[in-house]
Amino acid sequence: MPFQQDVRGFAAERDWTQFHDPKSLVLALVGEVGELAELFQWVPADEARRTYSSGPRRQRAEEEISDVLIYLLALGNSLDIDVLDAATRKLAAARDRFPVESVDGVAPEKD
Amino acid sequence: MPFQQDVRGFAAERDWTQFHDPKSLVLALVGEVGELAELFQWVPADEARRTYSSGPRRQRAEEEISDVLIYLLALGNSLDIDVLDAATRKLAAARDRFPVESVDGVAPEKD
Amino acid sequence: MPFQQDVRGFAAERDWTQFHDPKSLVLALVGEVGELAELFQWVPADEARRTYSSGPRRQRAEEEISDVLIYLLALGNSLDIDVLDAATRKLAAARDRFPVESVDGVAPEKD
Amino acid sequence: MPFQQDVRGFAAERDWTQFHDPKSLVLALVGEVGELAELFQWVPADEARRTYSSGPRRQRAEEEISDVLIYLLALGNSLDIDVLDAATRKLAAARDRFPVESVDGVAPEKD
Repeated sequence: MPFQQDVRGFAAERDWTQFHDPKSLVLALVGEVGELAELFQWVPADEARRTYSSGPRRQRAEEEISDVLIYLLALGNSLDIDVLDAATRKLAAARDRFPVESVDGVAPEKD
Repeated sequence: MPFQQDVRGFAAERDWTQFHDPKSLVLALVGEVGELAELFQWVPADEARRTYSSGPRRQRAEEEISDVLIYLLALGNSLDIDVLDAATRKLAAARDRFPVESVDGVAPEKD
Repeated sequence: MPFQQDVRGFAAERDWTQFHDPKSLVLALVGEVGELAELFQWVPADEARRTYSSGPRRQRAEEEISDVLIYLLALGNSLDIDVLDAATRKLAAARDRFPVESVDGVAPEKD
Repeated sequence: MPFQQDVRGFAAERDWTQFHDPKSLVLALVGEVGELAELFQWVPADEARRTYSSGPRRQRAEEEISDVLIYLLALGNSLDIDVLDAATRKLAAARDRFPVESVDGVAPEKD
């Protein structure tokens, strides 16, 4: 994904790659996931989608989701993992593991 | 990103979209981030990159990173947010916020 | 809290304190929080309390909550922070910050 | 632990218990874990303990660890789980599972 290279360039241009060991990047990812979780924490579960569907709250959700993606790609960069390629393979494996005809309508098991 | 649509189709074909409210998906994302964190927890920080650069450990890292991406995109689907578009805008905003000439070599501030 | 000392002894007796730098312990904590999150991810929000109130599921919840506490106390040990003392001060500060008469029935703000 | 009852009283007095279903509390916990992770993200692993041993940074670490404990106890309250009792049993089980003589000096396995 070209965007993963954009994230690499963004860090490299700022000389931040020196801080980007995997443990640090996972902690940074956790920080962003925490901000994402806080958005939804006190919203009733059945109102969450609507509450974040427009306006400044939608903007906040977009930003927090983006931050998670950016650090996930930075982690991929630090490990030389092409994240979209890996995820494409993982989704294909999940298709094999959970055939449509066998799981229809059943709560997904932990993957 | 076409892959976000693939993730949508994967869930829809299995009738799992009914479970995909934002709070549930953030919890699922946290579960996958937890598995990713566990990979690195006891590895010395300066050996983490090398330790996960090849073999079965690299495979594990690829899988856990993939799971995080897949649930992040599922969350995007539940909120009708195009994750790659949003992240592209966020990275552009970060470029403006942290101009190369002003931050070179300084530890990145929390974004 | 004497239990924080028990956690310290548990690690020390096994010579595991060598692995217990703060970054590693936060990652371990995140791993346990991930397991806790997975318990609840697909349960409807209004059934979560009842679903985990008895039987093997209650046992699972008890174990995952316990693991989070144990790693949190181990983190306290690594930083020589008495966690119960610190939390007692924090709760007192929160009582001052959110006086009962001013917040009654209003959704708690992010602290 | 009397402090768990203090946390219960704190929420009840403010009429916040209505928001404290397990999924919401896990998300709130994740938010606090995220803030804790951010403290350590860019600090070199071998400097983290010293960096947070005194001054305002120690204060920050104390506060973030406290917030995690408070939400963990609130989760225990929502499920009627006595967190200290449960963790005491869990640590006893871990002592049996990892006898001192068998694990001395070996990296702890995921529990």
